[in-house]
Amino acid sequence: MKKHNFSAGPAILPASVIREAAKGVANYEGIGLSLLEVSHRGPEFTAIIEEATALMQELMELPEGYKVIWLTGGASTQFFMAPMNLLDAGETAAYVDTGTWASKAIKEAKGFGNIQVLASSKEQNYNYIPKGYKIPKDAKYLHLTSNNTIFGTQLHKFPKSPIPIVCDMSSDFLSRPLDVSPFGLIYAGAQKNLGPAGVTVVIVREDLLGKVSRYLPSMLDYRTFIKEHSLYNTPPVFPIYVSMLTLRWLKKLGGTKVMQRRNKAKAALLYREIDDNPLFQGTALKQDRSLMNVCFVMAPGYESLEKEFLKETEANGLVGLKGHRSVGGFRASIYNAMPKQGVQALVNLMRDFANRKA
Amino acid sequence: MKKHNFSAGPAILPASVIREAAKGVANYEGIGLSLLEVSHRGPEFTAIIEEATALMQELMELPEGYKVIWLTGGASTQFFMAPMNLLDAGETAAYVDTGTWASKAIKEAKGFGNIQVLASSKEQNYNYIPKGYKIPKDAKYLHLTSNNTIFGTQLHKFPKSPIPIVCDMSSDFLSRPLDVSPFGLIYAGAQKNLGPAGVTVVIVREDLLGKVSRYLPSMLDYRTFIKEHSLYNTPPVFPIYVSMLTLRWLKKLGGTKVMQRRNKAKAALLYREIDDNPLFQGTALKQDRSLMNVCFVMAPGYESLEKEFLKETEANGLVGLKGHRSVGGFRASIYNAMPKQGVQALVNLMRDFANRKA
Repeated sequence: MKKHNFSAGPAILPASVIREAAKGVANYEGIGLSLLEVSHRGPEFTAIIEEATALMQELMELPEGYKVIWLTGGASTQFFMAPMNLLDAGETAAYVDTGTWASKAIKEAKGFGNIQVLASSKEQNYNYIPKGYKIPKDAKYLHLTSNNTIFGTQLHKFPKSPIPIVCDMSSDFLSRPLDVSPFGLIYAGAQKNLGPAGVTVVIVREDLLGKVSRYLPSMLDYRTFIKEHSLYNTPPVFPIYVSMLTLRWLKKLGGTKVMQRRNKAKAALLYREIDDNPLFQGTALKQDRSLMNVCFVMAPGYESLEKEFLKETEANGLVGLKGHRSVGGFRASIYNAMPKQGVQALVNLMRDFANRKA
Repeated sequence: MKKHNFSAGPAILPASVIREAAKGVANYEGIGLSLLEVSHRGPEFTAIIEEATALMQELMELPEGYKVIWLTGGASTQFFMAPMNLLDAGETAAYVDTGTWASKAIKEAKGFGNIQVLASSKEQNYNYIPKGYKIPKDAKYLHLTSNNTIFGTQLHKFPKSPIPIVCDMSSDFLSRPLDVSPFGLIYAGAQKNLGPAGVTVVIVREDLLGKVSRYLPSMLDYRTFIKEHSLYNTPPVFPIYVSMLTLRWLKKLGGTKVMQRRNKAKAALLYREIDDNPLFQGTALKQDRSLMNVCFVMAPGYESLEKEFLKETEANGLVGLKGHRSVGGFRASIYNAMPKQGVQALVNLMRDFANRKA
């Protein structure tokens, strides 16, 4: 049975990327060795990381002055590493609290300076994106989370900011075209739209670095990674390889513009069903609905059918649809690599289920 | 042609591990999904990380009170993370400088307390292991590097220490039986004896933690990883999987005792050839020679043959033998996964080369 993987992350990867990655583990490009056992300073991996970096620059259309670096530790490491590098003790940074990950970013940043929370949608269980807050001109940066994996909300338009934006884009990275110029730093754990778990991408405006007075260990200083082209120490070779394969796939498909069109079509198909189907309802405010993570629950009166529907999804090869405990119900993560057929299979099941139950 | 991989790291992995890992990427245990795209909180990865941790406890024969955790960032991250967690500002830690990595550990630790360097073999280009130094009783810990990958030296006997030993075991981890009780913390990047690049193992005596007063971000606090069983955030799923496969392989072979016997036999074979062959000579002091990284150069008078011999190794499928620039000549890394046939192939070539050239 064909499986459709709706996991929130680690998440679906393009089938062609998985096939190529498996070959690279068995025998990389016929060299008689696995990619897992070659030197990170040898010709094979040098070519991989250079191609990955160049593709990232191209697909993100990076302006002059921005650097792409490859790290580990996930977005959770960036929660402290960004303020550690950008915010001196006594200085202020502005944060918007749009969910679990945003609030973790706030918590971790508090060890490094004054953290001003401009707005929060916590009182509504993060089912919307706050807007209209005033951004302080004298803060060092504004921290945003572009997509909230757990609550299924997304920033469809970034606020006009007088200060550089630092943004956690883990769960909608490369899902749409982006004007990078308002951003000081963008970070993303790979395991949603880019690759397997184990690598984190950071895109940083180099002129913002080197201005804090605290001691930075080499491995926590973005400048180390820029200077050494992410090869100061042994990088996560295989996760970077798979990310490069995904970037190749994305370029071949037509880049972020094509991806945005596909993502809009997939999300529209699913949200239309959620809105039309009497058994289900969405949890996020319509204008802030995520194109990546679609959260929905049983409509009032049908709550008792939740377990049965979840069981049916699994029986039909639709995997990973159980909602996060903070929201309940269902979450369909329909990242870049999810084909429209996967979404259609879910929609068909929802419709069929309603016909049988209504 | 059969390749023999002598790379210093990322390094050779058992052939059976590579075959299994490639299958897991293509379709993990027949579930219809790649291991790269399943949730780290799902049943597949839960079983993997639990088995990896249990195998580590068993193979290392860990006493009560020690915890195994899985991190990222390599030994280079442990260079600062160990002092950050164990050494308060104003306190002293003792270090022994036995090579490039030991001296990086010293450099990174200096940001967190007083670092006392008890001994160094730098003046002899690190070709021996200093001994007989006095370990201060009032220091918080003694930091050692058990095997020096670049210079081919190894601590064959750990000094009797009145304070807990913190040890970088990246390049001889699990290569021999070890009495863990004198150690407060052991760390190892996986990419030599354990798995692919992208995961770091830490074994820590839990009662030493929580005693520093500085702010520790969650991801830099060992206690976070202990409390959340290395699942506070998304761990490097695939590198942990491959490490688990290697641990299974090691257990099946008979564990660290059998491994030590094999490693001694392989190293003896190669060092005997180096000592007997008039064209070559070893660089490390005999009593401190590493069983993992065998460094040798052309003997005086034969220096001009270096490039030719290196070319012949490559032509014969012996890969990764070029020595590190700090030592020159050749380095044969003969980690756990290197079969005796690989070493024999190198020895045969050295002998044949000498017969033709002498």
